[in-house]
Amino acid sequence: MARQDRAIRTRQTILTAAAKVFEERGYQAATITEILTTAGMTKGALYFHFPSKEDLALGVLSEQDQRLTVPARACKIQEAVDVITLHAHRLQTNPMVRAGVRLSLDQQAHGLDRTGPFLNWSRVIGGLLEKAREQGELLPHVKPAETADVIVGSFAGIQAMSQALTGYQDLNNRVSAWLRHLLPNIALSSVLTSVDLTTQRGGAVIAEIEDDTEDPPRPATEREPATG
Amino acid sequence: MARQDRAIRTRQTILTAAAKVFEERGYQAATITEILTTAGMTKGALYFHFPSKEDLALGVLSEQDQRLTVPARACKIQEAVDVITLHAHRLQTNPMVRAGVRLSLDQQAHGLDRTGPFLNWSRVIGGLLEKAREQGELLPHVKPAETADVIVGSFAGIQAMSQALTGYQDLNNRVSAWLRHLLPNIALSSVLTSVDLTTQRGGAVIAEIEDDTEDPPRPATEREPATG
Repeated sequence: MARQDRAIRTRQTILTAAAKVFEERGYQAATITEILTTAGMTKGALYFHFPSKEDLALGVLSEQDQRLTVPARACKIQEAVDVITLHAHRLQTNPMVRAGVRLSLDQQAHGLDRTGPFLNWSRVIGGLLEKAREQGELLPHVKPAETADVIVGSFAGIQAMSQALTGYQDLNNRVSAWLRHLLPNIALSSVLTSVDLTTQRGGAVIAEIEDDTEDPPRPATEREPATG
Repeated sequence: MARQDRAIRTRQTILTAAAKVFEERGYQAATITEILTTAGMTKGALYFHFPSKEDLALGVLSEQDQRLTVPARACKIQEAVDVITLHAHRLQTNPMVRAGVRLSLDQQAHGLDRTGPFLNWSRVIGGLLEKAREQGELLPHVKPAETADVIVGSFAGIQAMSQALTGYQDLNNRVSAWLRHLLPNIALSSVLTSVDLTTQRGGAVIAEIEDDTEDPPRPATEREPATG
């Protein structure tokens, strides 16, 4: 394996371990020692990539930002729905995404800048709404930046309620109901008639993504010895 | 002071201290010892009222449930808006309410049943929507229970985003924008034209409540010796 590939792989092993520990313990109680043990990694390898616990958490937080793209759609409202339903799907299947969302809502994460995910999400959704407006998909009163903030904020709560009540079992239903409540006041009804808001949408989008690396990470015990 | 008054006051002193500690530390890291110190209370007095840390947290969680009533309104959509904007106002001014909301979203609160606030809120908002439907205020497709869940879930996220980005400085603006996005797909426009959704609504409702005990609790050092 080339040196660079190995570095990328080591970084990913560390982030996967960090995500697991942050998700279980929260930011405050998580320790670098436990992340090292989970990753099966030496201190030197970890500190080379992430000098502090905050850097590890920011690494986990930014992983979800790199996953905000979906195949381009002619209808930009559909593309925004796809970004949202894909994210909802990954919350149920991908520990890294789940850890990122939990960190961003962890009010006990003192000293951790949690604004990034909210701002990035607003930027992505806001950008899609801008394009939707240019294409004439939106109702005339909609201000893309304001509406993006409403979408991003309320999604955070919809997923939190689903997590608290059913451990995400009903997340697809809740997201679908929420979108049905919100979108008729954002997009033209002539646009919405051909937008797929159903509970299956997230799964359909993920099946469509070719280069997707959605395999759940193997537990540390099954891995070959760390290369760091 | 009568014995019963003293017990109620002791209970309130303990809950205020617990709210402070839970808000600062989160459920997992909070200790009964720190709550005792903050309350200036003996172990015996505390355990008489709350046998465990979980009981203390459930006590804080249920405090917000007792604050879900507002003056009855002829328009039930306005009454629902008043419950929501009053709660938003209290998030900014009342440490007990803030601690309750944080606990209900604390995913590291292992062993704590966090479903209560979500279910109670849904019941209250759902009940108001049922009445609104009977009075003909709602659009025909609205199912009160589903819509109540959308409202409660998305509010949880709107407040979380405001907390993360601005420490609640922009909460009233975010709540107002969110309601403007959601309500036109719930209530008739003829009803909405006379509903107050402005950023000042929560403050106006609290000023109206006569028997309101919104004074911020005094810090422990200013209190007379504990009576427990």
